[in-house]
Amino acid sequence: MVSSVAIVAGLGNGSGTGGAAARLFAKEGYAVALISRGAESVNALASSIKESGGKANAFPVPAYGPDEIAAAFSAIHEQYPSSEYAIKVAVFNIGQGTWKPFLQLTAEDIRESNKVNIESSFAFARGAILAFQQNEAATSTGKGTLVFTGATASVRGNVITSGFASGKFAVRALAQSLAKEFGKQDIHVAHAIIDGAIATGNVRGDRNSPPSGPVENPTPESKLSPESIAAAYLYLVNQDRSAWTWELDLRPAHEKW
Amino acid sequence: MVSSVAIVAGLGNGSGTGGAAARLFAKEGYAVALISRGAESVNALASSIKESGGKANAFPVPAYGPDEIAAAFSAIHEQYPSSEYAIKVAVFNIGQGTWKPFLQLTAEDIRESNKVNIESSFAFARGAILAFQQNEAATSTGKGTLVFTGATASVRGNVITSGFASGKFAVRALAQSLAKEFGKQDIHVAHAIIDGAIATGNVRGDRNSPPSGPVENPTPESKLSPESIAAAYLYLVNQDRSAWTWELDLRPAHEKW
Amino acid sequence: MVSSVAIVAGLGNGSGTGGAAARLFAKEGYAVALISRGAESVNALASSIKESGGKANAFPVPAYGPDEIAAAFSAIHEQYPSSEYAIKVAVFNIGQGTWKPFLQLTAEDIRESNKVNIESSFAFARGAILAFQQNEAATSTGKGTLVFTGATASVRGNVITSGFASGKFAVRALAQSLAKEFGKQDIHVAHAIIDGAIATGNVRGDRNSPPSGPVENPTPESKLSPESIAAAYLYLVNQDRSAWTWELDLRPAHEKW
Amino acid sequence: MVSSVAIVAGLGNGSGTGGAAARLFAKEGYAVALISRGAESVNALASSIKESGGKANAFPVPAYGPDEIAAAFSAIHEQYPSSEYAIKVAVFNIGQGTWKPFLQLTAEDIRESNKVNIESSFAFARGAILAFQQNEAATSTGKGTLVFTGATASVRGNVITSGFASGKFAVRALAQSLAKEFGKQDIHVAHAIIDGAIATGNVRGDRNSPPSGPVENPTPESKLSPESIAAAYLYLVNQDRSAWTWELDLRPAHEKW
Repeated sequence: MVSSVAIVAGLGNGSGTGGAAARLFAKEGYAVALISRGAESVNALASSIKESGGKANAFPVPAYGPDEIAAAFSAIHEQYPSSEYAIKVAVFNIGQGTWKPFLQLTAEDIRESNKVNIESSFAFARGAILAFQQNEAATSTGKGTLVFTGATASVRGNVITSGFASGKFAVRALAQSLAKEFGKQDIHVAHAIIDGAIATGNVRGDRNSPPSGPVENPTPESKLSPESIAAAYLYLVNQDRSAWTWELDLRPAHEKW
Repeated sequence: MVSSVAIVAGLGNGSGTGGAAARLFAKEGYAVALISRGAESVNALASSIKESGGKANAFPVPAYGPDEIAAAFSAIHEQYPSSEYAIKVAVFNIGQGTWKPFLQLTAEDIRESNKVNIESSFAFARGAILAFQQNEAATSTGKGTLVFTGATASVRGNVITSGFASGKFAVRALAQSLAKEFGKQDIHVAHAIIDGAIATGNVRGDRNSPPSGPVENPTPESKLSPESIAAAYLYLVNQDRSAWTWELDLRPAHEKW
Repeated sequence: MVSSVAIVAGLGNGSGTGGAAARLFAKEGYAVALISRGAESVNALASSIKESGGKANAFPVPAYGPDEIAAAFSAIHEQYPSSEYAIKVAVFNIGQGTWKPFLQLTAEDIRESNKVNIESSFAFARGAILAFQQNEAATSTGKGTLVFTGATASVRGNVITSGFASGKFAVRALAQSLAKEFGKQDIHVAHAIIDGAIATGNVRGDRNSPPSGPVENPTPESKLSPESIAAAYLYLVNQDRSAWTWELDLRPAHEKW
Repeated sequence: MVSSVAIVAGLGNGSGTGGAAARLFAKEGYAVALISRGAESVNALASSIKESGGKANAFPVPAYGPDEIAAAFSAIHEQYPSSEYAIKVAVFNIGQGTWKPFLQLTAEDIRESNKVNIESSFAFARGAILAFQQNEAATSTGKGTLVFTGATASVRGNVITSGFASGKFAVRALAQSLAKEFGKQDIHVAHAIIDGAIATGNVRGDRNSPPSGPVENPTPESKLSPESIAAAYLYLVNQDRSAWTWELDLRPAHEKW
């Protein structure tokens, strides 16, 4: 019997959504394949998951871009041959914010944002869907689930978010198009709008806030816990084919929105 | 220690979303309070749940309207005194479609639609929120969860749906307003967009389709299973306060949308 | 040759959107039929339009409800026989806000809100569409245009807006359904989202704000001018059939949104 | 007294939205600056406008990209010195569709789509806003108006639209962000959703349809006339600061949507 593989891309320092998703899917028995910039962090995350009894492998990339993502998928296929493994879950958690007044954005900022946010998401989706199509029989949950991490900026442009929102809107368009194109192939594509600040140790700020550093002593009702976001992703993955969610929002109880 | 109560309103013949939610929450240990038109059906559902080892009581109403809903809540409070019970879940599944070309709609059709869809939803929400506020300490999932069953017509008006869509849009507005007003009181309000036909035995059709009778031999990927919708509601109820969903959509894998 | 009639419903004290629309359509040569509560105000508005050389008649109603609206349409047909007049424009500007914390709303508040906002809008739309269908040949702009005045609360529920937003969402659903149902009959239905405070002399506040009285010395870039809203309605009416707008938003340049 | 300049980018063979906008603004007295690929077509359009008594200059670009757009703006500033001219209108009509099943899209397709649709739109917006900021006093209509041509794919992803929709969603995000960031500087940014097929002579199809060639004998109620779209743009430009539209949709009367 084949083992199931979950791929998670975009892990930062391992303390946010990507890391929590990786740990949760490992705990659920998936072999987790970790794609991320920052070889040190991603290797440390893989080690820590293995120490907890999970199966994990790191596939560090030098940068987020279509070629790097494609190369990571090749390495993942080598590591997890289809005779023994079935790739069932893919979480796209890459996202790079550029919070600047519009006139301070350079052409290079936009090009880089497009590459990291959009070109990477297309390459990741391509890898995921080709892998899912190889899965022979549709189980009750379908051939595979691709989850995109969205943000407030996925559905609302705002002052100083032109650079970030354009990338996040684009990824949401991709997610919706794919959900419609591949649903009939029993492939589930979902988009989660993370609408609030995330309680992460990431000093670079999270994807919904300018880089002002982590909030001190976040309370559970005012900041999104990465573990709770990961639980939502697991729920999406486990939905059966008769009732799939394309999009859900997630925010803390006390969030003003 | 107090027992948890889940209220479900709108049960039809018991074969749809409301019935599935009632059975699932009973299985999860909730005492379920069933509000519905059609005393016979709702009594039969309560009996069937009790036969399966669950706790259930029927609160039949002669019609769907604010007075009837308020009276049902009074009866529920009597049946489940707050010394022994905590009302933690409330599912509003009432919805009455009126699929007619616009010019065939009478003033009475609109008045009745407003009463059934909107006035009932406000009365139900009032009962639920007042009950949740009595719950002393917020647990990790908050003081209580109120779920509204929405439909395609909650987000899109269409030919011959003016009568139905106006009611469903209104209920969605209520759900969003409540989510924002009561989130900070640790009360979770959610809205599920059921975007497809439901595999129900209800010959009156389901809430997303004109009354053409049930589909023969629905396949799991082409019709929404009421059990899968109920599973989504349970997931919403179990979300912890750091990551609450206001809205999610649910549709079959093969749905064209 | 027949004269064109424009019906405007919901005029308040004549200083807001409805009054500006009435004056503008009169200036454009339409005979304007004014439906409103407050016989004194609406009679004064009709007189003032006539003094400026326009054609206007007041059709005061004792309250906003489907029967009153239907009766006003009967009176309008009597006043403007189809042998001499063609009803070409209908502006639904009725809207009654109820800004209260949710738990202070009574069942009567909701029933009244449904009657004023929803039942009236259905009755008004019925009257308008039946009248437009009588217009023999479609001109380049179609057989007639029905415009609904929306508000921020038409697309966003918020704290203390449950009562108002439910009505405004419902009217938007009606507008969208009608646009789809009657476009192919060359009837144009549009919905304008007025997203900001209106510079009106109405001390009861305008439809987007709780009743805090009019802003002192509004500047043109911070408050919506009723005349500018009316200009948008005229633009919608004059759109030719090849490019009709269902929905547009309107807000002051300096509005935060 | 200075003359007003309107810049229009994206003209195809001159028979579509861009060409109609150029002709209309020229007729309204603007000197029109035409940025487009295809030197021959754009030069022919400029000549034809001049023959009709308008003022026009062609600024052909070898390709649509940020550097080419920036260079065109430099040339425009040289041609229209601020001592004599004020750039008041800028229409971004560039858009390149890629209708392919997702798995046929190459990394190069995405990169090119991002460059043409997104990087160009940012560069164009930068040029427009910097130019508008030079306009000394805000007139009643503000310092300038930037209009983006959107499409059905701006708000809805669909089967085989992942490549196109991601670009159009991104441009819409940009438009919304800019509207919020620059409204308070009296700069008007608007986004028009062209939701239907355009009656154009462009055999490459229009931006809402795969390239199946032009429709034979389009009727005005079934295809969007470029002239009517241009009229909408002129209306947006002439809106006064008290009531600006960020977004409107445009579709033929008989369109199914």
